[in-house]
Amino acid sequence: MTHRVFNFNPGPGTLPEEALAEAREALLDYKGTGMGVMELSHRSKPYEEIHFGLINGIKELLGAGDDWEVLLLQGGASLQFSMVPMNLMTGGRAAYVITGEWAQRAAKEAKRHGTVEVAATTEAEKFRRVPRAEEVKVEPGVDYLHFTTNNTIYGTQFHHEPPTGGAPLVADMSSDFLSRPVALDRYAAIYAGAQKNLGPAGATVAMLRKDLLARAKGDLPTMLSYRTHADAKSLYNTPPCWAIYISFLCCQWLQRQGGLAGIGERNERKARLLYDALDETGFYRPTAERESRSQMNVTFRLADETQEERFAKEATAAGLVGLKGHRAVGGLRASIYNAMPVAGVEALVAFLGDFERRAG
Amino acid sequence: MTHRVFNFNPGPGTLPEEALAEAREALLDYKGTGMGVMELSHRSKPYEEIHFGLINGIKELLGAGDDWEVLLLQGGASLQFSMVPMNLMTGGRAAYVITGEWAQRAAKEAKRHGTVEVAATTEAEKFRRVPRAEEVKVEPGVDYLHFTTNNTIYGTQFHHEPPTGGAPLVADMSSDFLSRPVALDRYAAIYAGAQKNLGPAGATVAMLRKDLLARAKGDLPTMLSYRTHADAKSLYNTPPCWAIYISFLCCQWLQRQGGLAGIGERNERKARLLYDALDETGFYRPTAERESRSQMNVTFRLADETQEERFAKEATAAGLVGLKGHRAVGGLRASIYNAMPVAGVEALVAFLGDFERRAG
Repeated sequence: MTHRVFNFNPGPGTLPEEALAEAREALLDYKGTGMGVMELSHRSKPYEEIHFGLINGIKELLGAGDDWEVLLLQGGASLQFSMVPMNLMTGGRAAYVITGEWAQRAAKEAKRHGTVEVAATTEAEKFRRVPRAEEVKVEPGVDYLHFTTNNTIYGTQFHHEPPTGGAPLVADMSSDFLSRPVALDRYAAIYAGAQKNLGPAGATVAMLRKDLLARAKGDLPTMLSYRTHADAKSLYNTPPCWAIYISFLCCQWLQRQGGLAGIGERNERKARLLYDALDETGFYRPTAERESRSQMNVTFRLADETQEERFAKEATAAGLVGLKGHRAVGGLRASIYNAMPVAGVEALVAFLGDFERRAG
Repeated sequence: MTHRVFNFNPGPGTLPEEALAEAREALLDYKGTGMGVMELSHRSKPYEEIHFGLINGIKELLGAGDDWEVLLLQGGASLQFSMVPMNLMTGGRAAYVITGEWAQRAAKEAKRHGTVEVAATTEAEKFRRVPRAEEVKVEPGVDYLHFTTNNTIYGTQFHHEPPTGGAPLVADMSSDFLSRPVALDRYAAIYAGAQKNLGPAGATVAMLRKDLLARAKGDLPTMLSYRTHADAKSLYNTPPCWAIYISFLCCQWLQRQGGLAGIGERNERKARLLYDALDETGFYRPTAERESRSQMNVTFRLADETQEERFAKEATAAGLVGLKGHRAVGGLRASIYNAMPVAGVEALVAFLGDFERRAG
């Protein structure tokens, strides 16, 4: 029996055990080819099945039609912070919603390529919530509005799309990609590192509506142009084959969970279980405002903050790992991405009660 | 018993079976952590041991001292084609040695950032050889001289460093990195995708002498600046942890083979075995000029080219796969990187004789 803990790390995070078990069989001999997945030529048929299996799997899960291009890239969301403005800031102006450190980093990179207008920010409230729709102001004529759907550090998440005033909507979905149904017709571009809800670190997904792609800037360093990767079906150069393979297995796993409706319902249930437990007495204190609470990263403090270190330590000893908050804010954080089973959240809830009884 | 073929693919290519077997054990529970390697936080101690294990392993193999910075990046050599001139073309001029398609691509990207001077080219001879030292002309004052140490498509390899006229030497070693001892004091920067001699696709190594790094341009998109990654010890954002892990295992494997001296001697022996067999009768015809022959990619034709398809097909049936030449040049190619065992080359040599007897 393999020893497995419940892994609440914010990313790289836990992966579906089924996918890992399948991957184990593919390391030395993938489907009788006599080669492991990492040893397959990226120009071979067995690899192409994986590659296009993932592209099509993502499209199916999101219900994306032929008007969408799904690209498999490298470099994480951090490289997308540059690629988005390089490719899409065609008129030299873009609007950004600022909801935390990652949104700030995205805006900072965009400033190298044009004018960045802040459509809304909740910095004055220490990012404890995302802006309400009526707080978002987008000036006419910007090339796009960028926002971060889920904020891992502050434990907040958008539960609505911000109004764009007609501008194309670009979303960094790094930490809630494929975790719930998405009103895709509201979006023009979506990007996400794989390592939270989809797969391991090393693969990055960028999805663009083809009409936006057609208007993108052309004269860019080859590897930084979305069009290069679109024209080559994400095979311009050697892709990160293994990370794509694992993401493909996870994509199939998501299908078996009932697609985004199924996983979305389960993620909602997990989050409710946990927030309900945290709200029950005054011993724990969730940090995000109720309407902005994230279903992915549940951030909380102990009323007595001096007990937090003990909490994290005893939780780890109980097989519940990765619960320390981000160093920028401290406190505690439970990341409960797609692959975190309900049983993991139940175990954490039991531990919450147990710890309160002992330390309260 | 696992079914394994001899995999002569040009990259991604074969990996050491020992490393794959070890990786299999780390997929679900890495060293008793209860998490697989892909699930480890990149800020955790177990991951840091892997990360710095690879950085230090590369430095040890090459005998690189504290004057070198080793960066673990993403995007392959193709992204380095841009990052090199963006960071290092400080005076706006660089010289390139043109020895094939990859060198041409590198030079093409560099032109976006300044003036590219051709220090030497063997295009007129269809890249059947690399330039001799006396053919390389570097004008004074260029920021660097760039060359491609091994040319996968044409099966050629430098067996000497080109003279730089005092300019820093920058090498794309994607296809022969860590395959033989290197006179490191001749180089200022070296880069390589991992997927040929070091590990799987998805990790890229860039090594820079620190004095060159100190003079590098600063005002660049954050992810495209070498300094970002140097300052953050290649942990600015989530690294491609799994590809780094496998590369780390392969690095340890290389140490067990006697380091670069040991693997270099074996690679030389493998290449000699194969070229000797190809030279023996007129039935086969190696395509590269003798002095420029690659120890990594052995390109050859059949005197009767119409038999080549049959050759590749029958070889595949005999468990010798990936022998078709690059689509740009046709013919046949055996890629015999670090992880190709001598037994694989011996099997190919036996097949060469067998096929000649049957088809000759």
